[in-house]
Amino acid sequence: MSRFLVLMSFVLLFAAGKSIAEPAMPTGALGVVIERATGSVLIIDRMQHEAIDRIEGLGDLSHASVNFSPDERFAYVFGRDGGLTKIDLLERRIAKRIIQGGNSIGGAISDDGALVAVSNYEPGGIRVFDADTLDMVADIPAQSKTVGLVELPGRRFAWAGWESGDAYMADLSGPEPVVTRLGATGANPYDAVLSGDGRHFVVGLFGEQGLTLFDMWEDAPEPVRFLSDYGKEGEDMPVYKMPHLQGWAFTEGQFALPAVGRHAVLWVNRDTLAETARTKTHGQPIFVLSQPASPYAWVNFALPHNDTLQVIDSRTHAVVATLKPGAAVLHMEFSPRGHEVWVSSRDDNKIIVYDTHRRAVKAEIPAQSPSGIFFTARAHRTGL
Amino acid sequence: MSRFLVLMSFVLLFAAGKSIAEPAMPTGALGVVIERATGSVLIIDRMQHEAIDRIEGLGDLSHASVNFSPDERFAYVFGRDGGLTKIDLLERRIAKRIIQGGNSIGGAISDDGALVAVSNYEPGGIRVFDADTLDMVADIPAQSKTVGLVELPGRRFAWAGWESGDAYMADLSGPEPVVTRLGATGANPYDAVLSGDGRHFVVGLFGEQGLTLFDMWEDAPEPVRFLSDYGKEGEDMPVYKMPHLQGWAFTEGQFALPAVGRHAVLWVNRDTLAETARTKTHGQPIFVLSQPASPYAWVNFALPHNDTLQVIDSRTHAVVATLKPGAAVLHMEFSPRGHEVWVSSRDDNKIIVYDTHRRAVKAEIPAQSPSGIFFTARAHRTGL
Repeated sequence: MSRFLVLMSFVLLFAAGKSIAEPAMPTGALGVVIERATGSVLIIDRMQHEAIDRIEGLGDLSHASVNFSPDERFAYVFGRDGGLTKIDLLERRIAKRIIQGGNSIGGAISDDGALVAVSNYEPGGIRVFDADTLDMVADIPAQSKTVGLVELPGRRFAWAGWESGDAYMADLSGPEPVVTRLGATGANPYDAVLSGDGRHFVVGLFGEQGLTLFDMWEDAPEPVRFLSDYGKEGEDMPVYKMPHLQGWAFTEGQFALPAVGRHAVLWVNRDTLAETARTKTHGQPIFVLSQPASPYAWVNFALPHNDTLQVIDSRTHAVVATLKPGAAVLHMEFSPRGHEVWVSSRDDNKIIVYDTHRRAVKAEIPAQSPSGIFFTARAHRTGL
Repeated sequence: MSRFLVLMSFVLLFAAGKSIAEPAMPTGALGVVIERATGSVLIIDRMQHEAIDRIEGLGDLSHASVNFSPDERFAYVFGRDGGLTKIDLLERRIAKRIIQGGNSIGGAISDDGALVAVSNYEPGGIRVFDADTLDMVADIPAQSKTVGLVELPGRRFAWAGWESGDAYMADLSGPEPVVTRLGATGANPYDAVLSGDGRHFVVGLFGEQGLTLFDMWEDAPEPVRFLSDYGKEGEDMPVYKMPHLQGWAFTEGQFALPAVGRHAVLWVNRDTLAETARTKTHGQPIFVLSQPASPYAWVNFALPHNDTLQVIDSRTHAVVATLKPGAAVLHMEFSPRGHEVWVSSRDDNKIIVYDTHRRAVKAEIPAQSPSGIFFTARAHRTGL
């Protein structure tokens, strides 16, 4: 009897110790940072300005991206090696990991949180998984590499095909997926983005000039080409890194566009789709991100200018600040109300936290070759 | 020894039992529902479609509103009796409660989550509290009842004064609050709202025709009057209930305005501030809310039409659906990505959850005289 109680005490001590070591924790101010060289991610607490744990064993995380469940508990990490890893941010462990393809390029989660979609280069097409179990629920193959996957309301997703030069939508709200071809985009779409109101699906082209827009509020969206004199112009200037269209800043009445291969940000009127202004920048822009609830957009740059950030006023289109956070600045993430921006400096092995109002450093957090930074607030945003 | 182990086992059994009863829980899909008649709130889980606990003892909750901490752990409930109650959603208990004034009308939380501001009728003015301790950190008195309190980025707040007919801004980012008079609004402002991009602070008037807008991106915002032929027109039609301006739907390029005392929603061009269309509605509108990531606005109504909701297409300004959720529909709250809207039916003692795409009921949750519904996703939104 007494031996049983000793044993029982140890069992219960372990259970109690576990609950003391991992106290109840809210998830609204958590996030993950991709450590690309080591196949690991940091779980961070953005209120405390600290890394609270490191999760390892996520495979090839070059070019990785992340989505979150609606309750902000689970992070879905899409790796370049086709890995889809579900991280439990509360228990700080990998809940499940599968290799779902050979070379994947990003993902999206349905508005109700039930489905996770992955876009693949190898094989082409998209695959859709049950968000709980990661069991595959739909395989939508294509001859093309899939780019620019976005979420649309009503358990729908849209994407474009690199070789086929067209765009598709899948509706997974019924018993069987319904796939619709939206139309031709132009040659070699390389990325796409959805505006925050879910209306405009904008596709960037590498193979020819211009961009293509679809109005996703329409029953039968049709391609509209614009900025037909914009794009990669001949071989006069090497493109050091393709810009990310997920980073396009949509602001009231206009959006900002990183010019491919040029030292410029283009400003486009959202009604007329005409270029209204051009801002000369320090280098080739990669991400152009709106600082929430402000007139400002923040820009980072390709090599050899990737130690620099610039801030542009969307009213005057003038550069109002130039900052030098560190070596190889790969990504920025704003707090959802915009009071901070977190910046990854890969080659200085740290995250730098800026006060956006003073544009001053308020904290630094060590990290191993950090790239993407993703806050759980993304769970509540359309298009991701 | 054996007696010690028995005791120890019970202690540990209790500790383990506690951790089993209240497991680690994410906070991104929680919310609170005001039960106005009983001074209680329900904590709800919007993924599970269920009430998970009831918290009692919150005083007079008629016309109560709620803000959330950035980590989505704490709900700050502003009661009509001047009560400010901080609820811990994880531990499901009142963390702190103070009576901070005689008659309060709403609150806001700073972008960094450090400060909670309350607007008061009695005494007039606003009071600002440390979000952790609820200790008062600033008292900004006024001769007027304070209305339309909003949060502005950079630890700032703005509001209007009912008797004084003007608007103010307080900057709490430095060691002492800096209060600035923004200018005259017109007679008897009754509510105000901030656009999602933090730019336009719009004040509704009861004492004269028109509305007043301030561009809060300017260094010195100035009042701009618009819709000067709009407002309460004589005594020809009784105003059964003042509409809520927090409910104004700002969509791309236009916003929707509940017409005071009329069976109409007005559509205003955001650039020109001119009325562009008018939608005839079933009753006097109270809330006009944008369904996220869609062209639709949902409207509820004052007595005697408060059993009805209508859905309006912002492109055509036509009513596209009329629904009858239940008796005395007081409030609506959309899931952040818009796939659901939760509707309170006070006199049927229930919350009705609609699938917004099918406009069909998908769940019902019992509640005692429910009024306001507030999801934790509000933590991540500017202006609240």
